[in-house]
Amino acid sequence: MITRMSSLFLRTLREDPADAEVPSHRLLVRAGYVRRVAPGGYSWLPLGLRVLRRVEETVRQEMNAIGAQEIQFPALLPREPYEATNRWTEYGDNLFRLKDRKGADYLLGPTHEELFALTVKGEYSSYKDFPVTLYQIQTKYRDEARPRAGILRGREFVMKDSYSFDLDDEGLECSYQAHRDAYIKLFDRLGLEYVIVAATSGAMGGSASEEFLAVAENGEDTFVRSTESGYAANVEAVVTPVPAARPLDGLPEAQVHHTPDTPTIETLVAFFNAAGLGREFTAADTLKNVLVKTRRPGAKEWELLGIGVPGDREVDFKRLEAALEPAEVELLEEADFAKNPFLVKGYIGPKALQENGVRYLVDPRVVEGSAWVTGADQRDHHVLDLVVGRDFTPDGTIEAAEVREGDASPDGNGTLVAARGIEIGHIFQLGRKYTEAFEVDALGPDSKPVRITMGSYGVGVSRLVAVLAEQNHDEQGLVWPREVSPFDVHVVIAGKDETVREGAEKIAAELDAAGLEIILDDRKATPGVKFADAELVGVPTILVVGRGLANGLVEVKDRRTGEREEIAVDSVVDHLAKLVRG
Amino acid sequence: MITRMSSLFLRTLREDPADAEVPSHRLLVRAGYVRRVAPGGYSWLPLGLRVLRRVEETVRQEMNAIGAQEIQFPALLPREPYEATNRWTEYGDNLFRLKDRKGADYLLGPTHEELFALTVKGEYSSYKDFPVTLYQIQTKYRDEARPRAGILRGREFVMKDSYSFDLDDEGLECSYQAHRDAYIKLFDRLGLEYVIVAATSGAMGGSASEEFLAVAENGEDTFVRSTESGYAANVEAVVTPVPAARPLDGLPEAQVHHTPDTPTIETLVAFFNAAGLGREFTAADTLKNVLVKTRRPGAKEWELLGIGVPGDREVDFKRLEAALEPAEVELLEEADFAKNPFLVKGYIGPKALQENGVRYLVDPRVVEGSAWVTGADQRDHHVLDLVVGRDFTPDGTIEAAEVREGDASPDGNGTLVAARGIEIGHIFQLGRKYTEAFEVDALGPDSKPVRITMGSYGVGVSRLVAVLAEQNHDEQGLVWPREVSPFDVHVVIAGKDETVREGAEKIAAELDAAGLEIILDDRKATPGVKFADAELVGVPTILVVGRGLANGLVEVKDRRTGEREEIAVDSVVDHLAKLVRG
Repeated sequence: MITRMSSLFLRTLREDPADAEVPSHRLLVRAGYVRRVAPGGYSWLPLGLRVLRRVEETVRQEMNAIGAQEIQFPALLPREPYEATNRWTEYGDNLFRLKDRKGADYLLGPTHEELFALTVKGEYSSYKDFPVTLYQIQTKYRDEARPRAGILRGREFVMKDSYSFDLDDEGLECSYQAHRDAYIKLFDRLGLEYVIVAATSGAMGGSASEEFLAVAENGEDTFVRSTESGYAANVEAVVTPVPAARPLDGLPEAQVHHTPDTPTIETLVAFFNAAGLGREFTAADTLKNVLVKTRRPGAKEWELLGIGVPGDREVDFKRLEAALEPAEVELLEEADFAKNPFLVKGYIGPKALQENGVRYLVDPRVVEGSAWVTGADQRDHHVLDLVVGRDFTPDGTIEAAEVREGDASPDGNGTLVAARGIEIGHIFQLGRKYTEAFEVDALGPDSKPVRITMGSYGVGVSRLVAVLAEQNHDEQGLVWPREVSPFDVHVVIAGKDETVREGAEKIAAELDAAGLEIILDDRKATPGVKFADAELVGVPTILVVGRGLANGLVEVKDRRTGEREEIAVDSVVDHLAKLVRG
Repeated sequence: MITRMSSLFLRTLREDPADAEVPSHRLLVRAGYVRRVAPGGYSWLPLGLRVLRRVEETVRQEMNAIGAQEIQFPALLPREPYEATNRWTEYGDNLFRLKDRKGADYLLGPTHEELFALTVKGEYSSYKDFPVTLYQIQTKYRDEARPRAGILRGREFVMKDSYSFDLDDEGLECSYQAHRDAYIKLFDRLGLEYVIVAATSGAMGGSASEEFLAVAENGEDTFVRSTESGYAANVEAVVTPVPAARPLDGLPEAQVHHTPDTPTIETLVAFFNAAGLGREFTAADTLKNVLVKTRRPGAKEWELLGIGVPGDREVDFKRLEAALEPAEVELLEEADFAKNPFLVKGYIGPKALQENGVRYLVDPRVVEGSAWVTGADQRDHHVLDLVVGRDFTPDGTIEAAEVREGDASPDGNGTLVAARGIEIGHIFQLGRKYTEAFEVDALGPDSKPVRITMGSYGVGVSRLVAVLAEQNHDEQGLVWPREVSPFDVHVVIAGKDETVREGAEKIAAELDAAGLEIILDDRKATPGVKFADAELVGVPTILVVGRGLANGLVEVKDRRTGEREEIAVDSVVDHLAKLVRG
């Protein structure tokens, strides 16, 4: 069926919407793809819905290709399963909660781990049933604190979420890899520029979690990549290369110095450099101890935690949080210092922490045999040459120090640079968190129960529409990849002449009959208006039927390159069919 | 892609689910199409989702065929537009309401009139833009008091809702008729047995509203149909045929009688028949006056209303409510009688009502010139031969009396019989309620604004899956119409012999290559189990590959009729392709 601009529910805008921060938002609104209905809530107009459906279908094909089976859950879910996994509480303000007419608690599903786990438990019971992978393409809800950038970060959005169920870790690794490969195929088909980044430090196992980030200047996610290799990671997931331990023999004794007026690293370094010790000090020689308090999920009491990082680096709170997850973490308040008088602000050292039973974790650079300038636990005093493994032994290491451009790449090749991206996919070896909560077991060949292990895999389907627009546009408007374009060919009737109109109608009908999706600009508007709208709407191929028709010629324009080509009317259907089908 | 039972996420049940009241619910659960997640909330397993998608696609095709354009709104909607039309309040407990993290009010959309009206206002402004019809196929939410019968009446369900926007009433009539025709095509394609019933008494204009009801014993909706004609209507919409008025001349005078111990119609009739008046009385000769109170939307005060109906009929409260809509109506309480001492319970007559300014509406049978036995407004007294138009004049008529089987059909052909159905579609000439609320205008050719008029049209998409199951099943299981069957052919490997398995795999691959949707039962189960599951799942054509293969034969079974046919292996692909494509 030919779509006619004369009746299409579409009004393009000449002006940018006032609230649009990023190009995709600006252009999707101007070209009439979406309209804002509420904060983070958008309606899909005909063109937008066509692109969304094509993205959905591409995702569906790649999921089906790895044997994943599509099902669909309600979005309105009872509280109980989410209570069982504590997510009813953990989700905090991000969860939309409501009550039904009887006062029962419900939520709008942000993700469906609980329901998938319960459903598999309900249907399957034997080891012969596994592995199985299920997915849905569904509307999800998250009460984002700051919905932004149109459909890029909405509160109601379409997501593909899939879940694998395996008997053992090797199976999970397989399912994970299958999803990883499927996502690569998917994002390649969509022509996206993206990176795969490690999403966690790997504390849960090798590649327990990776994110697919579309490279975008306006991206919310910061990641680092190597200047030399393919290494890329979320800042939270960067693993600090550990220097070799040094022998303890022959290192100078630790000495406490009276260091008046040295409350900062800068003043401290200046003090020692002026002390005539015959050595040059930098901030990297000092050990800064930052005190925080943490609380495990469900626990009532906060616990003190000391973090030691080289003095030339700040603690990166997001990295710290990621390292401590799922525990909460907060900076100390004045009251906490008052309650713990052994904490001498500005002069905290490992000694007082360890003597008072405070857990003390250090940056991985703080290796055995390294010597530090650090606090001596009394006002105006620091200790010099405090050696790890001789004078103190930390309780472990933690990835909490900031990552900086120029840091060595963890894979040993090149140095790190920062870049920005938008999360479009996430693959995650969940493990047994949900199967433990619901006791999802399979009866093994020996009749003993085997606890199932899960993987969880998401793609932001509606977000992909925005990401595709973000990576495919120019000054004039959108430039869709063929794979998801709302139409194959945009036919412009450029002329009021009745023969031109009839000729264009005939060609459009032939293209339609050849199975191409056609939009026909049959409006009573000037060619200038029509060309501008065609550029804005962004169908990859524009066919202009105008005066040349008298000489048997029409013009085919490539929206992306701007190249124009005159084609004989007789061969235009073949020409375009080949172009579209590749 | 061939779907294999060996890996399909499906476990059929031998037992009926405990909570299933109707066959569709029982069978959709047993055959593994849906699972209950919450009251009125169901998950769609792979087979169910396939049928749902096919129904959706059929609906979409018929909508597109009449030029309706698909868009999609959020389900999570802000309060304001629904406040503007008062539906935020009017919807009462049926509306799911919630607050976001900032305390702003939201709702889960039950229908989207407000959003469609606002969107058209946002995009269109000239008379040249109209008419336009928009639709969506979307998940909707209603907090039903009694969700029941599985997906037949859920709280989260899929609906197609479309809205037409026209410049004038003739345009609306056209759009309405286009939808009516489209729905007939749709429901005919789905092979449903249904009736189209008048849904309102027509107070708003000829055919302002009609419902499509699937005929079903278990239906929630009662309707009446004529024994002779095609007339069918909701009970609420039945219009009572009005008898001719009679001349007033020569009618006996009204007389008040002392009628002790006649609190009921029965005792009253018996009294007069025993009074030696030389006339035979029946209940139909008495006029029963029922007192209710009504309140207009937004009003604080209740208003008394007297309803006069022939004594042989009860007041049907649903008909009364429909007749008074949108006003509320309630029966009087003792306190109301106490406040209005002129209301003598059991003996209320038109006189006291009219003298005390109580609005008094009568059944259409209470025509001018008709004479009645009715209350005389004092205890133990009734009046005989009280004549309409001479002794009292009602304020109007009302359709509030019960409709009974055997009543004359309003179209003058035959009498009425009752039947039950399930609402599957509703078409409604909304008029200007929403365009008034939001001032949706088009600038006319004379540059004057024209207020747009709307139609609203719904199809219960997920409900249709249940309705189809309700009308298409037998003792053994489901029997899908080809149009929506999850697969075209169910191939059963009936035998452990390797050649049988290989032969079946080959045929399945050929059928798949021919473009048919194939489910292949390749499980290690007995033929008995496989046959039972095939019957339960309900694919219309079952292909059994078994021992006959050695002689070059396979068996094709028609699920609906049970007919079996032996077909040569060489011609089976052609045979089935013809069968499926019709």
